[in-house]
Amino acid sequence: MGKDDKKRIFGGIDIGGTKILAVVAEEGGKILGSAKKKTKREQGFKGVCARAAESLREAAEAAKVPMEALCAAGMGVPTPVLADGTTAIAPNMPGWKNAPFTKTMAELLGIPCYGVNDCNAAALGEYVYGAGKGSKTLVGLFVGTGLGGGMVFHDHVIEGENHVAAELGHIIVREGGRKCGCGHNGCLEAYASKTGMGRKIAWDIHHQGRKSVLTQCCPDGNYATIKSSDLLNAWKQGDEVTVEALKELSYFLGIGVANFITILGPDSVVLGGGVMEALGKDLLPLVKEAARKYTWPESSYKDSKISLSLLGDNAPTLGTVAFARQRLDNEIA
Amino acid sequence: MGKDDKKRIFGGIDIGGTKILAVVAEEGGKILGSAKKKTKREQGFKGVCARAAESLREAAEAAKVPMEALCAAGMGVPTPVLADGTTAIAPNMPGWKNAPFTKTMAELLGIPCYGVNDCNAAALGEYVYGAGKGSKTLVGLFVGTGLGGGMVFHDHVIEGENHVAAELGHIIVREGGRKCGCGHNGCLEAYASKTGMGRKIAWDIHHQGRKSVLTQCCPDGNYATIKSSDLLNAWKQGDEVTVEALKELSYFLGIGVANFITILGPDSVVLGGGVMEALGKDLLPLVKEAARKYTWPESSYKDSKISLSLLGDNAPTLGTVAFARQRLDNEIA
Repeated sequence: MGKDDKKRIFGGIDIGGTKILAVVAEEGGKILGSAKKKTKREQGFKGVCARAAESLREAAEAAKVPMEALCAAGMGVPTPVLADGTTAIAPNMPGWKNAPFTKTMAELLGIPCYGVNDCNAAALGEYVYGAGKGSKTLVGLFVGTGLGGGMVFHDHVIEGENHVAAELGHIIVREGGRKCGCGHNGCLEAYASKTGMGRKIAWDIHHQGRKSVLTQCCPDGNYATIKSSDLLNAWKQGDEVTVEALKELSYFLGIGVANFITILGPDSVVLGGGVMEALGKDLLPLVKEAARKYTWPESSYKDSKISLSLLGDNAPTLGTVAFARQRLDNEIA
Repeated sequence: MGKDDKKRIFGGIDIGGTKILAVVAEEGGKILGSAKKKTKREQGFKGVCARAAESLREAAEAAKVPMEALCAAGMGVPTPVLADGTTAIAPNMPGWKNAPFTKTMAELLGIPCYGVNDCNAAALGEYVYGAGKGSKTLVGLFVGTGLGGGMVFHDHVIEGENHVAAELGHIIVREGGRKCGCGHNGCLEAYASKTGMGRKIAWDIHHQGRKSVLTQCCPDGNYATIKSSDLLNAWKQGDEVTVEALKELSYFLGIGVANFITILGPDSVVLGGGVMEALGKDLLPLVKEAARKYTWPESSYKDSKISLSLLGDNAPTLGTVAFARQRLDNEIA
């Protein structure tokens, strides 16, 4: 960064399964304008790309910045992005498997475009602008429907040599344990996500016959889709099924945190995602308790600052801004 | 490397709990001379350092190279080495906790000295000169009494920001599972090491009353100290207790491999240590089977070459050579 004294401007787009969020921001992280759209994923790859491009144009308009002023755009998606800019797997996005993502967006926007996995972007966002600012090694864990993660090591996003790694929710933490959506048993995500927790809640209510205020929120019985705000309400009311489920989620999230500290010795661990946005202040002490218990060596626990996301919804968008800047500068250098 | 055309020469010392191994080698990895000594750890920190220095002098003599010709020496120890060159914890080495390791060795040898954890060194050795040569991201797992590990990411040894991470044997893979020597339950090392396997064997023989040829090899009943050659003999004879124990070890080692692929997406995974030296050819297919089963996404498995150590006993010594070269060049640059 800092090739000259002028503050450069970048675009950042986060394409999610339900919504697209776009920002235009200075390279220092100041957001000048933003825009939001429904993803409408049923429109397929080209339709969604067009909506993403339109979102960035709207963000530029809101920022009163012409599109030509953008040095580049970063784009996060809920799938790995390969070295050639194509997407890998995309279970929840029809038409997005092996799609020419970067190329298509560059054609639509007319500026250099760089695609990256959304959770990797979110981790980079927290590293450069957020809760991990000033750290050297960062692990980000984002608790929502699933459990996404990202790692930054000395400015490098660790995506794996095949660009499909950093699947932090799919490490095995309880061999032989609960079935995960991925088909394996005992993944971290099978416990530390809404989907994982939803299985426990459904079991408690449907098989154990326990009462819970959550039954009103999820009349279809699919607790993986429960809103974080409903969880927060049930937690505040002391609903036993909810309290137990969130304690279990926090305990396993703490085991995950411990594993990543034991492996990577990050100076910063950042916890985000919908569940942590809503309940982070209450759950963080529980997560830390388990992390302290399971980190090895024990002394290593205190060297890692474990904190909640500072950027919230803008972790992925600002992360893509940082990513685009990094890639552009690498190409120029 | 390659500051000039002359091949530079380095020293490498591996200080283990029972023996010290020293080499004098060209920076390209060619060993010119080596020497071996008992550690005699009862002599404490200064005594062992003196023996390590003496070992390197003997290696230089064997190589017919004057000590002044060595650019620097790398030194591996079974404890983390902090940024200031002091050792961290050292459970099995009396007097080695918080000891001024690098400073003491530099005074004894009169050349620049760089200390590093032995398993981190071994991983770097395989990365630069061994089974992982040409790879970009490498994970090394070394199965002996314990389970040691090391990671290299684009030439950087990942030691953690506090220099005590990369404790790959102490990730939790079976929450609530077998007690590990570290005090936690369910660590990878509690299954994928001689110590972990030894607990299963002891249980099978002492509590289940099963017969095994291993009882002759370990009359004291401590199967954690069993020789790898005895394990190999029992395995070849089809001794049921041994076969089951080694299958379990391989299965969990495979889960560990899967976790590290899922996290880091290394293009190379190298398996070494006494157990793999002796039984690697037979166990590798079992390790791979479990690794394939548990890696996410599944396609990622085939992008990681999983292979046995090429350097064997010299992985740590040559690793310290590479480490010393790297550190020296960073100081010069």
